[in-house]
Amino acid sequence: MVSKSAPSTDDTRDVILDAANRLFARYGYRKTTVDDLAREAGIGKGSVYLHFPSKQEVALSLIDRVNVELQEQLRAILREGSSPELRLRKMLEARVLVRFDAVQHFTESLDDIFADLRPQIMERREGYHRVEAQLFATLLEEARANEQMQFDSAQNAAYSLLIATASLLPYSLSAQQLGDRDEIIRKVRRLAELMLRGLLSR
Amino acid sequence: MVSKSAPSTDDTRDVILDAANRLFARYGYRKTTVDDLAREAGIGKGSVYLHFPSKQEVALSLIDRVNVELQEQLRAILREGSSPELRLRKMLEARVLVRFDAVQHFTESLDDIFADLRPQIMERREGYHRVEAQLFATLLEEARANEQMQFDSAQNAAYSLLIATASLLPYSLSAQQLGDRDEIIRKVRRLAELMLRGLLSR
Repeated sequence: MVSKSAPSTDDTRDVILDAANRLFARYGYRKTTVDDLAREAGIGKGSVYLHFPSKQEVALSLIDRVNVELQEQLRAILREGSSPELRLRKMLEARVLVRFDAVQHFTESLDDIFADLRPQIMERREGYHRVEAQLFATLLEEARANEQMQFDSAQNAAYSLLIATASLLPYSLSAQQLGDRDEIIRKVRRLAELMLRGLLSR
Repeated sequence: MVSKSAPSTDDTRDVILDAANRLFARYGYRKTTVDDLAREAGIGKGSVYLHFPSKQEVALSLIDRVNVELQEQLRAILREGSSPELRLRKMLEARVLVRFDAVQHFTESLDDIFADLRPQIMERREGYHRVEAQLFATLLEEARANEQMQFDSAQNAAYSLLIATASLLPYSLSAQQLGDRDEIIRKVRRLAELMLRGLLSR
């Protein structure tokens, strides 16, 4: 937290989100107030409100940030030189693990966040999934053009992949499941295996 | 609601659950009280408490009842004489649609129920899924014995099928998605298609 005196707008936003991340882990979402956020971020309460109208917005923006990070990782994998099969495996794992790693340190806050913001999170999810579907469809189309995979519609196949792995995302996991990263990895790998067998050309 | 005077314990239980079903649809879970439940069921408040310690327990028991009904349907499909492929499709569809049809008339109550009872529902889900996994594994083993399907572990493959369709269950659907049954059917069919291609022997 260098140059607290005059950070740029984007920096302040991230400083607040980082503070929220720490406080949600330490005290939980419910107990954290905007005052706490300001103190932890080392800025005035007014500055927090300049960026976020409420604690709810802070939590939703944290979720947005994880999704932007995920999309960047998916694009990076998409550009790799490896086989479509390997890239698809990696993309499916990233889709699950980037989100898992982002929240697993504040398991208890998750229940509170979902209790408070379920409808808003559901709405945003559709936007996230649209972007991801586009990235998966790009890979699928490339693999089909090379006759490595076969399916009717790349868009539909991409959505099937997303639907199939969606229940491994934090929203659908219990605190106990969030405690066992290795088990989540095994599950996503088995799913990827099954669906790849379904997609690969015969 | 015949013989209100001396119904058996199981009957009263079901009468209360039916009443809850109607009231959750009409007024919402949050606004419904145990008094309302008693009135709608045509019994005394004390009788409600004899069967359920709280409104929360009523909601959880409603969910249990849907799952028992689903398990019965899955067993019935399992016993049919059709091909494992067709039965697997039917079982996957039943898994999604029985639950969908049970709740889609009280969309708005769902948010409230999940907000109030998320941890308890998550815990119960594991039990439901264990039973379903067993039923799917039974079918898969039969198909493997007949050399119609191939996979490493029937148990793991069964769980992959459950995981893949879990995000189409009400818990993970928005109110808007719950409004479009045909779209849910299309999604589960596409998924079944993809996974069957992955399971069928080559």
